[in-house]
Amino acid sequence: MEDKAQIQEAIKVQGEVVRKLKSEKASKEQIDEEVAKLLELKARLGGGDDGKHQFVLKTPKGTRDYNPKQMAIRERVFNTITRCFKRHGAETIDTPVFELKETLTGKYGEDSKLIYDLKDQGGELLSLRYDLTVPFARYLAMNKITNIKRYHIAKVYRRDNPAMTRGRYREFYQCDFDIAGQYDAMIPDAECLKIVHEILSELELGDFRIKVNDRRILDGMFAVCGVPDDKFRTICSTVDKLDKLPWQEVRKEMVDEKGLSEEAADQIGEYVSLHGGMDLAERLLQDPRMSQSKQACAGLSDIKLLFSYLQLFQVTDKVVFDLSLARGLDYYTGVIYEAVLTQAGVAPASNDAQNGSEESVSVGSVAGGGRYDGLVGMFDPKNRKVPCVGVSIGIERIFSIMEQRAEAAAEKVRTTEVQVLVASAQKNLLEERLRLVTELWNAGIKAEVMYKKNPKLLSQLQLCEETGIPLVAILGEQELKDGVVKLRVVASREEVDVSRSDLITEIKRRTSEA
Amino acid sequence: MEDKAQIQEAIKVQGEVVRKLKSEKASKEQIDEEVAKLLELKARLGGGDDGKHQFVLKTPKGTRDYNPKQMAIRERVFNTITRCFKRHGAETIDTPVFELKETLTGKYGEDSKLIYDLKDQGGELLSLRYDLTVPFARYLAMNKITNIKRYHIAKVYRRDNPAMTRGRYREFYQCDFDIAGQYDAMIPDAECLKIVHEILSELELGDFRIKVNDRRILDGMFAVCGVPDDKFRTICSTVDKLDKLPWQEVRKEMVDEKGLSEEAADQIGEYVSLHGGMDLAERLLQDPRMSQSKQACAGLSDIKLLFSYLQLFQVTDKVVFDLSLARGLDYYTGVIYEAVLTQAGVAPASNDAQNGSEESVSVGSVAGGGRYDGLVGMFDPKNRKVPCVGVSIGIERIFSIMEQRAEAAAEKVRTTEVQVLVASAQKNLLEERLRLVTELWNAGIKAEVMYKKNPKLLSQLQLCEETGIPLVAILGEQELKDGVVKLRVVASREEVDVSRSDLITEIKRRTSEA
Repeated sequence: MEDKAQIQEAIKVQGEVVRKLKSEKASKEQIDEEVAKLLELKARLGGGDDGKHQFVLKTPKGTRDYNPKQMAIRERVFNTITRCFKRHGAETIDTPVFELKETLTGKYGEDSKLIYDLKDQGGELLSLRYDLTVPFARYLAMNKITNIKRYHIAKVYRRDNPAMTRGRYREFYQCDFDIAGQYDAMIPDAECLKIVHEILSELELGDFRIKVNDRRILDGMFAVCGVPDDKFRTICSTVDKLDKLPWQEVRKEMVDEKGLSEEAADQIGEYVSLHGGMDLAERLLQDPRMSQSKQACAGLSDIKLLFSYLQLFQVTDKVVFDLSLARGLDYYTGVIYEAVLTQAGVAPASNDAQNGSEESVSVGSVAGGGRYDGLVGMFDPKNRKVPCVGVSIGIERIFSIMEQRAEAAAEKVRTTEVQVLVASAQKNLLEERLRLVTELWNAGIKAEVMYKKNPKLLSQLQLCEETGIPLVAILGEQELKDGVVKLRVVASREEVDVSRSDLITEIKRRTSEA
Repeated sequence: MEDKAQIQEAIKVQGEVVRKLKSEKASKEQIDEEVAKLLELKARLGGGDDGKHQFVLKTPKGTRDYNPKQMAIRERVFNTITRCFKRHGAETIDTPVFELKETLTGKYGEDSKLIYDLKDQGGELLSLRYDLTVPFARYLAMNKITNIKRYHIAKVYRRDNPAMTRGRYREFYQCDFDIAGQYDAMIPDAECLKIVHEILSELELGDFRIKVNDRRILDGMFAVCGVPDDKFRTICSTVDKLDKLPWQEVRKEMVDEKGLSEEAADQIGEYVSLHGGMDLAERLLQDPRMSQSKQACAGLSDIKLLFSYLQLFQVTDKVVFDLSLARGLDYYTGVIYEAVLTQAGVAPASNDAQNGSEESVSVGSVAGGGRYDGLVGMFDPKNRKVPCVGVSIGIERIFSIMEQRAEAAAEKVRTTEVQVLVASAQKNLLEERLRLVTELWNAGIKAEVMYKKNPKLLSQLQLCEETGIPLVAILGEQELKDGVVKLRVVASREEVDVSRSDLITEIKRRTSEA
């Protein structure tokens, strides 16, 4: 049991935090987060004055519900992405949300501590999936599939420190596209970049860059700069911080924390400042030091080949060969890439708008991926390899941007697709309304009635205004006698009598152009 | 540690089981299940002769992957269901896959033992959602929403004993449609039944029945038959078994296990054998015993009203008022319903085909739901009630039927939507192929190239045959010189030269009718 007084003190402090944020007009997300903490504290006090209903009414830390408006935006984004994946001929698969714990073991390096485990309730030990790549590799090995082009859109789970205002959650969607199979070099790799280019362009998120590098170039560079073999991975992790930290701090970590020599660090520093296109790859192939590494040369030749295909795909305008790109995950073996939004035009929702430049950096990476030729082999009893390359679209950040934008533009997002409300002008017409709406449903028209025996005409019309229903089919004594329906256009308030037998055709005609 | 010899013995026995099933040509699912058990046993032996890769390559018990073919079928079913929900004006929401453990506590009665808990890794205690109804109620209370019509299609989790051949899994989809709000009686309830009718008709699963009853009628019936108040729920659970057990066994359980008097049991027996339509409700309202219960009368009047709306909705052909319908869950307060497929025409996949009648029963319920007016109030600190009624489509059983059907009909299910393969007739045309496929992608056409520098024309044509791509755009030296592309129709082998500038229009024309 906790000390009651201690919790009460904590509640007082947390209450102050919430009041302060509110008075500063902080963002809704930020306030919600702090209110949630407050509620949690109150719940820990237990009992309380309200009696039995003293529990916390919230979603788990780092998660959220999607309301209908958010779902409408989410659906639009998913449709754009799915259309692109299908345009490139991908199939789709699905895997369970949890895997055997051992399936995930040893695949994520240091990040393994962020994996959610299920409670041992007897039976197998299970963990929630951490990404879609490892389950994909498990699926390929288990079904002995040696080539496939598939996409998978699903939620993954990480016990990370959530930063929800910036679109970082513990439960979040990934949209993955991967090509598995033994093919001629760099063709599938180039298609992955083409896909990123298409999706980011179509979503109109503003300008972006796709950084490209190769694990073999990084390893070769480390070798020729004198990094000991056993420090490749850890130095690679430090290089990975260059998008957040200035070189001086990265250098410091290399030398002070990781024990690298100053000379090696400085040599690395020269290389990682380089970025360019095919020309840079050519120059580095001539570089006296770099050219000593076979690995680096293989990577550089492939970058050259990659760029030649990217030219044919018409996407070189956004792609940069950037030697500072490292990427965190252990399993990459060749080309790696990461897409970032470069426009500061993305308005942050909260008050730290003053700090615009920092905020625009923090939106950061919206897609990333690379080649992982060894992962499937880790699951195969005979270690048979299946070369793979893929890309993952970081959809939550994209949602955040789209939502902020819809809010800023005060855009009216419709959350239903109803085409017509069946309404009545007088009392006692419920049966007639139900009869008519049945006719419409049976003809495939999206229609509603109010669930009231005798709704007022005005409240029926108001419902249409509020929810964006474009048409009203109004029934009255006279209309029923004449065998017509009064069809009202909500926007223009225009009304026409349509004969009952023409009504369906007329509604379809009027809504097909919308 | 387990006894090695014991496990080895178990492996021997299990090996026999698998061999036997194979020789009997049992269904793939059945064999897979037994093979999985065998692999699990082998894994428990550990170490073994193959060295380090001695882990089990499988999905967790009671779960499965969906391959592209299954996904194509799943997508079709989801589209039909979603279209229907949208036709009825529903919005959609999403909630996290896990909830605070306490959110689920006390909502499912005995079934609570089937809830998956997450491991306590510090922080909140979490459980995987067990259905979509409780999270929906939590969402309404948390956001103080008093009326909404929403659908939610998502996975739920139950640590049940899986029977995968019959479509029973530990991870499975639910498709829920619910109407929350204070409305005039039975209008939303009737719409839920209309929706079940539309979906089951559209999916063409064969004939079906929708059984309807009311918790108030059940409770009233128990009261007038002399069941003590504190035995209502447990006797209700026993009645719920009537779709699987004959009356004699159900009676036995009531009397011997639950301690009900023989007279009470026999009186119940008379009532639960009744089924009919509006006429039955009218008859029971006159029944000397039943009419003594206020509750029962309220339920019976509402059933009458419900049937009058169902007549207007044109669905009474499939709806039966059935006093034996009880449904398991605790939270129902009014109307309840359940849809069952009645056709034995659904071919069972496995060998127990001889036992046709039993199998056709076991496909059983494909949709169910009812009114739950108290659930939201359980989450509200002030116990404010939000009346709700809803229905859940049991999609896994429907998938199983559709899959079996596709297999039986040897139906060729396409898993991609590719319209055209860009191919070459000679060597060294990779760049030209990439250039052309880029043109097509940029015009929104679904297109592919083979990831080879110099693929043979024959293998390119074979790929189209195998995957159902209807068109091939063939490039050769001559075509490039003439500024044309040879467009080949895979089915008819017809070939025409199309000028490069007309190609996109021509492909769109030829594939729009497909």
